[in-house]
Amino acid sequence: MKTDQMLAELRAQSPLVQCITNYVAMNIAANVVLAAGASPAMVHSDSEVADFVPICGALTINIGTLSPTWVSSMQLAADTAVASGKPWVLDPVAHFATPFRREVARDLVSRNPTIIRGNASEILALTGGTSAGKGADSGDSVADVESAATVLALTQGCVIAITGEVDFVTDGTRTARITGGHAIMPKITAMGCSLTALIGAFAAIAPPLNATVAALAMFAEAGERAGKTAQGSGSFQVAFLDALMQIAPDDLANDAHVQWL
Amino acid sequence: MKTDQMLAELRAQSPLVQCITNYVAMNIAANVVLAAGASPAMVHSDSEVADFVPICGALTINIGTLSPTWVSSMQLAADTAVASGKPWVLDPVAHFATPFRREVARDLVSRNPTIIRGNASEILALTGGTSAGKGADSGDSVADVESAATVLALTQGCVIAITGEVDFVTDGTRTARITGGHAIMPKITAMGCSLTALIGAFAAIAPPLNATVAALAMFAEAGERAGKTAQGSGSFQVAFLDALMQIAPDDLANDAHVQWL
Amino acid sequence: MKTDQMLAELRAQSPLVQCITNYVAMNIAANVVLAAGASPAMVHSDSEVADFVPICGALTINIGTLSPTWVSSMQLAADTAVASGKPWVLDPVAHFATPFRREVARDLVSRNPTIIRGNASEILALTGGTSAGKGADSGDSVADVESAATVLALTQGCVIAITGEVDFVTDGTRTARITGGHAIMPKITAMGCSLTALIGAFAAIAPPLNATVAALAMFAEAGERAGKTAQGSGSFQVAFLDALMQIAPDDLANDAHVQWL
Repeated sequence: MKTDQMLAELRAQSPLVQCITNYVAMNIAANVVLAAGASPAMVHSDSEVADFVPICGALTINIGTLSPTWVSSMQLAADTAVASGKPWVLDPVAHFATPFRREVARDLVSRNPTIIRGNASEILALTGGTSAGKGADSGDSVADVESAATVLALTQGCVIAITGEVDFVTDGTRTARITGGHAIMPKITAMGCSLTALIGAFAAIAPPLNATVAALAMFAEAGERAGKTAQGSGSFQVAFLDALMQIAPDDLANDAHVQWL
Repeated sequence: MKTDQMLAELRAQSPLVQCITNYVAMNIAANVVLAAGASPAMVHSDSEVADFVPICGALTINIGTLSPTWVSSMQLAADTAVASGKPWVLDPVAHFATPFRREVARDLVSRNPTIIRGNASEILALTGGTSAGKGADSGDSVADVESAATVLALTQGCVIAITGEVDFVTDGTRTARITGGHAIMPKITAMGCSLTALIGAFAAIAPPLNATVAALAMFAEAGERAGKTAQGSGSFQVAFLDALMQIAPDDLANDAHVQWL
Repeated sequence: MKTDQMLAELRAQSPLVQCITNYVAMNIAANVVLAAGASPAMVHSDSEVADFVPICGALTINIGTLSPTWVSSMQLAADTAVASGKPWVLDPVAHFATPFRREVARDLVSRNPTIIRGNASEILALTGGTSAGKGADSGDSVADVESAATVLALTQGCVIAITGEVDFVTDGTRTARITGGHAIMPKITAMGCSLTALIGAFAAIAPPLNATVAALAMFAEAGERAGKTAQGSGSFQVAFLDALMQIAPDDLANDAHVQWL
């Protein structure tokens, strides 16, 4: 399935995407999903996730501002997604930073995410490597983590996306690199978290590997467009949401941001 | 009381408005209330709502990102508002989506809100109808829900506002439609939640029906202004906050957005 | 240490700053810290703060949207900061408004913050005075609170910053006033909370008094720049983040915003 077709499909269906995400990302992630053309739902309580996941097209879980009451919801939501055949995306933010966070990430990985997205340090730490990450920022390069990520994808039977200056996406067999975006993006909070939500939106209407590539390509295109006029992180965010809304399927027809290896 | 007088009064008094709202809406709702001229307070813990509600001019409760610990606060805050004679506004976000949410909305409706604001699907579901809503998005038209809303307003003894392309406001006896705004607004997260907060601000300084109409008219005017320059949801939000701040009472003097039926 | 040197140092080190802040401020505070050049981490659970504080350069605690589960985390984080020799900054938002909030602020002040930042009403209430504040807005003037703040700084052995039209910073012995900024800033939510986060960033790389002055001077400069083009609170926020990113150390070389008394 090609990226332009997937974007057309996303806008035609406007799938409901449940995002369990952090307090920093809540607003911008919802706006990213809306601007792209899907319908976000920030529903997180264990009093309702088992009822809500089955009516959604996909689920995303991001552990940014983690606390114990949220963990039980995340576990229940993930299990419900698997049981009801819905794809779910894991974003293990800075999971290497503390024992609590590491343990939660390990537990969630064991619950069979369809797709895992992280920066190089986060994915490296999932493969058992020692990361140089600091908080939510990566201290490792995407290239250094590609081999380990491919092994992890095969072992886990899931798609792994490492995002950075050049993104790397693999299901262990097929692999793509995505270029584009803009150097200012790591200086804006919750961009990665928003990307995870967008991957969820595409995963609701397309197979996991293609969905991930489509979301990354659309993000890269929007970032490139926004970067042309932005004067800093304020104006970049404004232009970025505008760009997501303006990008038409045809704009992604040549898949200029995607290189299949 | 006319809209222009109410806006002048709002800016003169700058009433304190307590907003118990969701994580997505917190920032934008506070900025909307500030830009309009009132003073928002995002206070939600049951350790303090009984002390805080009485010093406010009004209370708003939005169930967007609901969880059990917030429910007890909402109940206590609502009861305190009624006991201390403060108007309170209910925003029953997507309450039809799960049993937990439905039960909480039913409970809060029983605690005598002064005003209820929702989209057509949310208000329809409150009247016992089967809604076509999906998550926080409406799947029903305002026109189809007007009769049931009028009955609900009479039964409940409260003001009902259904917001959509054309808004409908009624206390069961007097009814108004509000036009204006912009087609992009449903594609921006938490706009409805922010409108609920703004209704609270006006309810602090004017009778419920008039206050609701004033808030909707100001929102419609700001949306119309922002829509003139916006290139997407990013630039719309920026222009919208600017417009709220720029609108002077005189700009609302002819009440061009309001049609009393 | 001069402000321009401190900004150069901040960008060279990009220190990790743990911000326990409120739901309203989460996104904008993180973006302010990133735009200035440091690395924010919104980590708040008592399951991990004891592990996370020691790897950070500084900690900030803001009680805006307080609830009991967050209080125990704040206490543990503050104690960990003191035990591990990390500076920590307290922002006692509207602590005079309810008994719950007042008690939490009193408790946190007793845990030896390195720096306390508040508006005039908040600092006045900390000194035992009766404030005229309303919610998060100040009802008192900075000038009226300066003497009491100086006594408080000496008693507490910490730096006190009162922010307002003209800021006042003191450690009880040395004192500075900071001018600049823009009249629109009190009409934008979470600006003060974001400033507290930025003080934390500077405190990670410089002594407390100088760090506080540097953060306030950078904020004042960014506010002044943003005010030149802003049409309201929407465009101000965009221009403000852009300005924080654009300000170079040399732009602060003459310390035009700072007057040492």
